[in-house]
Amino acid sequence: MLNQNYIDMCGMKSVIRELFSYGSERAKEIGYENVFDYSLGNPSVPAPESFTNEMIRLLQSENPVTLHGYSPSLGIDSVREAVATSLNDRFDMNYQKQDIFMVSGAAGAIAHAARAVTTPGDEILTFAPFFPEYMPYINSTGAVLKVVPADINTFQINFDAFVDMLNEKVMAVLINTPNNPSGIVYSTETIKKLAMILTEKEEEFGHPIYIISDEPYREIVFNGVDSPFIASHYNNTITCYSFSKSLSLPGERIGYIAVNPACEDSALLVDMFGQISRGIGHNCPPSIIQLAVSKALYDTADLSVYETNKNILYTELTKMGFDIVEPGGTFYMFPKALEEDAIAFSNKAKKLDLLLVPSNSFGVPGHFRISYCIPTEKVQRSIPVFQKLADMYL
Amino acid sequence: MLNQNYIDMCGMKSVIRELFSYGSERAKEIGYENVFDYSLGNPSVPAPESFTNEMIRLLQSENPVTLHGYSPSLGIDSVREAVATSLNDRFDMNYQKQDIFMVSGAAGAIAHAARAVTTPGDEILTFAPFFPEYMPYINSTGAVLKVVPADINTFQINFDAFVDMLNEKVMAVLINTPNNPSGIVYSTETIKKLAMILTEKEEEFGHPIYIISDEPYREIVFNGVDSPFIASHYNNTITCYSFSKSLSLPGERIGYIAVNPACEDSALLVDMFGQISRGIGHNCPPSIIQLAVSKALYDTADLSVYETNKNILYTELTKMGFDIVEPGGTFYMFPKALEEDAIAFSNKAKKLDLLLVPSNSFGVPGHFRISYCIPTEKVQRSIPVFQKLADMYL
Repeated sequence: MLNQNYIDMCGMKSVIRELFSYGSERAKEIGYENVFDYSLGNPSVPAPESFTNEMIRLLQSENPVTLHGYSPSLGIDSVREAVATSLNDRFDMNYQKQDIFMVSGAAGAIAHAARAVTTPGDEILTFAPFFPEYMPYINSTGAVLKVVPADINTFQINFDAFVDMLNEKVMAVLINTPNNPSGIVYSTETIKKLAMILTEKEEEFGHPIYIISDEPYREIVFNGVDSPFIASHYNNTITCYSFSKSLSLPGERIGYIAVNPACEDSALLVDMFGQISRGIGHNCPPSIIQLAVSKALYDTADLSVYETNKNILYTELTKMGFDIVEPGGTFYMFPKALEEDAIAFSNKAKKLDLLLVPSNSFGVPGHFRISYCIPTEKVQRSIPVFQKLADMYL
Repeated sequence: MLNQNYIDMCGMKSVIRELFSYGSERAKEIGYENVFDYSLGNPSVPAPESFTNEMIRLLQSENPVTLHGYSPSLGIDSVREAVATSLNDRFDMNYQKQDIFMVSGAAGAIAHAARAVTTPGDEILTFAPFFPEYMPYINSTGAVLKVVPADINTFQINFDAFVDMLNEKVMAVLINTPNNPSGIVYSTETIKKLAMILTEKEEEFGHPIYIISDEPYREIVFNGVDSPFIASHYNNTITCYSFSKSLSLPGERIGYIAVNPACEDSALLVDMFGQISRGIGHNCPPSIIQLAVSKALYDTADLSVYETNKNILYTELTKMGFDIVEPGGTFYMFPKALEEDAIAFSNKAKKLDLLLVPSNSFGVPGHFRISYCIPTEKVQRSIPVFQKLADMYL
């Protein structure tokens, strides 16, 4: 008999993926240039040459038996060492090789972290608006994801609601800053307050409460924005990183988990991640991709286009009357829809071949997400289409 | 509170990995050439040029944004299509794209298949001798792996014991041919008998019993040996394949699941695999590696060295008095130890810097595994060391 859980999951398709599929089909009908597809968070700039050149060098120069050989189950030693060093250099931390676990992107990192720090029935809290795939990542572990309502004026943390929801069963708090879908970066003040509350509650409940920090957008922060490194403000931090956005490698599934060495049980946690990978038969990310990213740890793709696009959209849409909390990073923006029903709003936009994701699955009603990782000329050409949409609500 | 299951798993280290680590340390002391390390199944021949050249071509010629973009969650369409075609060409089957799921090696494939076809408490049967990592792959799903005792005269299937163990809770049978650790290939007669029994029992129990067929060694079959394609003998077959051995890419974590289109629920199963990957946050194997293997589907590394090594070891060890069922494929051999206690035997060998894996974790007492994926000159130099070991039992 087949497992009903997974059959049920098949029925719950991602709204984002469905909109993206619609866009691809529509592009075949009316031409790619005529569909303003703001649905998917797929980087639009090439990977840096340091990555590509290192891949080619490895393939041309290294002994293939060694190059393509098994990686140790926690990751290749030299790669783990390089990741630790780069974090220490950039964020004044004290990571060592044994605090780093190589993993296939932030998604795997979050799922591993959640499995390690909970037993079935425990709770993990996250903050709206949130990335909807957190639901399958957490709920597949047997723990329960609960969502703290948003502070829709700032998209920082709604602390009153948060404190009300903290209880003994909460083993971790899952945060994402810079944030998908709001584009907001949590301020140092927000992080300090979060750390203070968690420290008090750890004492009260008598067990650690981990911050699982989902940081794929860490490198996409706009000019002048305060962007604290979470682990430097809270010992029990498990940092989940992906190179998908910073190096424009979303399909290559490569990232890491960094456990703060000041965290309780840091060494044990990394060993546990290895066992979790073993149990699902996943093992390590590919050897060659581990090796190549380790030579690009201080690089990024040219991410400046995202700030350019943000500036155009924020300025023009605000002028049209859209209510937007200005993003501090990422390539997302999360304006208020022009009617209460975000799905109806998104459907009206769709008729103009403007693809906007309605906010419901992000845990906030009445908003929409714009993923502006598309060419700037297309952003510019989309402005009159947004105007047409706004005019429908005059 | 940390999850105790994974903490417990940390304590259960792999005997094979420990012996390999010992060998690496010992090589630093006395020189790599003086340690006869038969512990690990790591291919010793380079990947074929078709793979390497395609990787380089992709990196040099393709648009990096497209090349490194997200793969669809079931795998890249053109790759799934190419895999289906290559199976049809080689084994006279009728696979289509929708029957193929790209996955990170056979380990992940087995764990996915087991998750899909069981609910916690169900049973999966496998046959001794078996690859010990099946235990974490299956037991992590909540199903229970039970081991059918070996037929130590042939290492084909012990059908009497098998029939005794079949019951209503058995949802799948996990087989591995060519086999790790015995090197034996199941004959057409064995597979036909297995299929006949399962078909009868499906009828009796009123539910499908799947064959989960672990086939990483499918391409390593020695001259003249009968090696049936399992799915062509049984409709409810889920084929788990890895390119690790055939293309010498164990570290690159790439393989696929092929569900026989004649299987009940074939399309649903592939969709379920996608949801299983989603839940563990693993998603797809890397895009570039999917694309590159799709150009090497009719190739293999030069696998002839394994048969050469087998011939030397089988001939010489048999002469010395070792009792061996002659392997039909793989790069493993599973002789009887010269004393009942396989661990004591392996320890005596270790003192001669000859690293042999004791059989206990493979589910058979009193044997040992030789992984002869090492250079032939080293195999030849190891023969006098085996003689020394044998002489200790005169």
